[in-house]
Amino acid sequence: MDGRPVRLGIAGLGRAFSLMLPTFLADQRVHLVAACDPREGARVQFAKDFEAAVYEDIEGLAADPNVDAIYIASPHQFHALHTRVAASRGKHILVEKPMALTIAECDDMVATCDAANVHLIVGHCHSFDTPYLQTRKIIESGEVGSVKMIQALNFTDFLYRPRRPEELNTEEGGGVIFSQAAHQVDVVRLLAGSRVDRVRAILGAWDPSRPTEGAYTALLWFDDGIFASLTYSGYAHFDSDEWCDWIGEMGSTKSADGYGAARRRLRAVHGAEEEARLKAAATYGGRDYVPPKSNDRLANLPAHQHFGPVVVACQHGDLRPTPRGILIYGDDKIERRDLTPPGVPRFEVIDELVDAVLHNKRPIHDGPWARATLEVCLALLQSGREHRDVTLSRQVGLAR
Amino acid sequence: MDGRPVRLGIAGLGRAFSLMLPTFLADQRVHLVAACDPREGARVQFAKDFEAAVYEDIEGLAADPNVDAIYIASPHQFHALHTRVAASRGKHILVEKPMALTIAECDDMVATCDAANVHLIVGHCHSFDTPYLQTRKIIESGEVGSVKMIQALNFTDFLYRPRRPEELNTEEGGGVIFSQAAHQVDVVRLLAGSRVDRVRAILGAWDPSRPTEGAYTALLWFDDGIFASLTYSGYAHFDSDEWCDWIGEMGSTKSADGYGAARRRLRAVHGAEEEARLKAAATYGGRDYVPPKSNDRLANLPAHQHFGPVVVACQHGDLRPTPRGILIYGDDKIERRDLTPPGVPRFEVIDELVDAVLHNKRPIHDGPWARATLEVCLALLQSGREHRDVTLSRQVGLAR
Ligand SMILES: NC(=O)c1ccc[n+]([C@@H]2O[C@H](COP(=O)([O-])OP(=O)(O)OC[C@H]3O[C@@H](n4cnc5c(N)ncnc54)[C@H](O)[C@@H]3O)[C@@H](O)[C@H]2O)c1
Ligand SMILES: NC(=O)c1ccc[n+]([C@@H]2O[C@H](COP(=O)([O-])OP(=O)(O)OC[C@H]3O[C@@H](n4cnc5c(N)ncnc54)[C@H](O)[C@@H]3O)[C@@H](O)[C@H]2O)c1
Repeated sequence: MDGRPVRLGIAGLGRAFSLMLPTFLADQRVHLVAACDPREGARVQFAKDFEAAVYEDIEGLAADPNVDAIYIASPHQFHALHTRVAASRGKHILVEKPMALTIAECDDMVATCDAANVHLIVGHCHSFDTPYLQTRKIIESGEVGSVKMIQALNFTDFLYRPRRPEELNTEEGGGVIFSQAAHQVDVVRLLAGSRVDRVRAILGAWDPSRPTEGAYTALLWFDDGIFASLTYSGYAHFDSDEWCDWIGEMGSTKSADGYGAARRRLRAVHGAEEEARLKAAATYGGRDYVPPKSNDRLANLPAHQHFGPVVVACQHGDLRPTPRGILIYGDDKIERRDLTPPGVPRFEVIDELVDAVLHNKRPIHDGPWARATLEVCLALLQSGREHRDVTLSRQVGLAR
Repeated sequence: MDGRPVRLGIAGLGRAFSLMLPTFLADQRVHLVAACDPREGARVQFAKDFEAAVYEDIEGLAADPNVDAIYIASPHQFHALHTRVAASRGKHILVEKPMALTIAECDDMVATCDAANVHLIVGHCHSFDTPYLQTRKIIESGEVGSVKMIQALNFTDFLYRPRRPEELNTEEGGGVIFSQAAHQVDVVRLLAGSRVDRVRAILGAWDPSRPTEGAYTALLWFDDGIFASLTYSGYAHFDSDEWCDWIGEMGSTKSADGYGAARRRLRAVHGAEEEARLKAAATYGGRDYVPPKSNDRLANLPAHQHFGPVVVACQHGDLRPTPRGILIYGDDKIERRDLTPPGVPRFEVIDELVDAVLHNKRPIHDGPWARATLEVCLALLQSGREHRDVTLSRQVGLAR
């Protein structure tokens, strides 16, 4: 470890935070020093767990002089405002995906962070996952020739997990486009490495009781002739982790025991308020909150995180990033580049954070990068609604 | 077995015929009584194997009074003409996919067969495969609700198998759209059950030494809101049969030993003529021809034929037709409907043939059905070339 840890403040102690918590606990390069959340239970728990300062709102947290950087894990609709407040107080920003809800918000975030001379990183996003980053390295090495076509798909029960009301209302950032295409598009953009020219999408909203997009399928055209096919179903019964060695999104082995659990649990819930309470109860500081396993246990994660099966068809080989390694199907032979399971989950996020905050290194997942992903997501919605191609204007590639 | 066998004549004793031969040998409901082919070696072999009449061209075969029906397995560009000649002599028609090269040809074939009062069946096509037919039955039973989205993909080495020159020239029917989308589109149409409204496609032609489309990805919009995503790569290194229990297209178990064999073999071949000779040599009556295994061996086929992994997302469950059975991922549980391996491969083609010829039952895979698939295929080409949606006008659904 080089130098002092990054002193991190947390804005929003919900599910995203609890998914990052194992990382924060296990990675010595960060230190949790403060947090804000309107939920008192979460603040009490955080103060107790970390002997740290807690605030009711972002203003208090942003004013805390002990904080180097703020992880903004509040609901989508607060990302822009919280970034503005935190950056204006000189804090570096790690903001959850999706970066924001509109391109105007993204522009504001980029401008504010530039003006304040702080780094802006958007994540965690699954394009941070080592299998994708390493696949990109193999592509850049030239050993399989240029990328031609990318196929990405993911079948999950996303829509049946307990939600806040706005997570089921597209106008407020609900549905799988904002929350899940944000991952899938980012992964595919990383692998393609170039700019998206246009998109064409079909949206699926099949459950009137959860009236937002739960599925989509889309075509992406990139510069230099690369194209991609993306499919996502958050209504799924079939679990595409079957095609990822039965490793789940979080890098753990999956068992068939949980089949149908999300739908079953939801059936017992009556009304949007009860559902939102159920979500909050299971999250940090909530009634049913289960703290993360100990560090030892984490070090035994069997594999890397991922976002569903992906095939990258290249001129001289197909690449399959998988949780345990990268399969290189060459012209003559198959090679498997095994990946050591991560000692710390999502350590890649901390890599970029530390590089930016302590070494002033520009992150891959910076504002312009993530804005381009949001632009694609918004274009998926527009394309699906207007039944036409949507061309893009705010795209960036990898090498800038 | 009910009644006498169908007396079948064969037009074109090439690869398609050799793939159907195990069926013809094992299924007592058909009897091979005559054939035509310009290749003398093939005629000699056929005359010897079946003590049957052989002709140099379709006119001779069509005039043979012993023939009830003709299986037209000549190259694409002859399908229309051969159908016309055979139908005008009162023969029922089983013509290989793709039905023809243009809609005008299809119209002519339908009209000619109608006028001659003979049945027209287009196949073998993988939509005859029992896993898809049975999946369609499950859909029609209503047990998983209506179809919403279909995902079909297939990664093969199609483009690197030995080819005739016209198989690598799109204008003459070459490339994966005519030969492979003909299967994939037909399977997806069967599962959707309704009419395609429009298509959007991206074409991949990545190998200048084989200058035709070897890959595509496409979106299909159906009546009643169903949509589908189709992807095919005939340049593939990754073999998607991995996601079909390692059962190959023909229903046999696959081993990893053959990896890269198609590309390797082709590297030793110099020029288009040598390649065409290589294809002919391996086919019926050719120098390197290997006769099909005995009937006993065929009865031990481990599983059904298929055309790559398919997921049918329905309102209350996802369906996965696989070579060994249909997986029904319901709201509450996964059910596996095992399928008995076929005693005779492709017996489903003979089912439709016998039903039509002997019992005057309209086949599923009739002229209008197959014309609709060709219309989609041509639209894929047009969409990819003109970078726009193509709407369709000659579509038919399943229930007519
Ligand atoms: N990268 C991932 O794997 C991942 C996973 C889940 C969520 N997320 C993202 O994290 C964000 C939050 O989603 P979630 O599922 O954790 O929601 P959540 O409801 O579980 O958590 C949100 C938290 O923010 C708090 N909050 C609400 N208003 C706030 C405010 N004004 N200031 C500070 N805190 C506030 C809530 O009390 C709650 O504790 C979303 O943008 C989502 O896309 C990312
Ligand atoms: N359903 C399937 O699985 C499948 C598989 C392969 C081919 N096919 C279809 O079968 C057709 C033939 O393809 P193939 O791969 O067998 O080609 P091929 O070249 O192996 O065979 C064609 C045969 O037709 C003969 N022929 C050529 N001109 C002829 C004519 N005028 N009259 C009669 N015979 C003639 C050739 O000598 C050859 O024996 C194509 O339409 C193809 O799409 C279907």
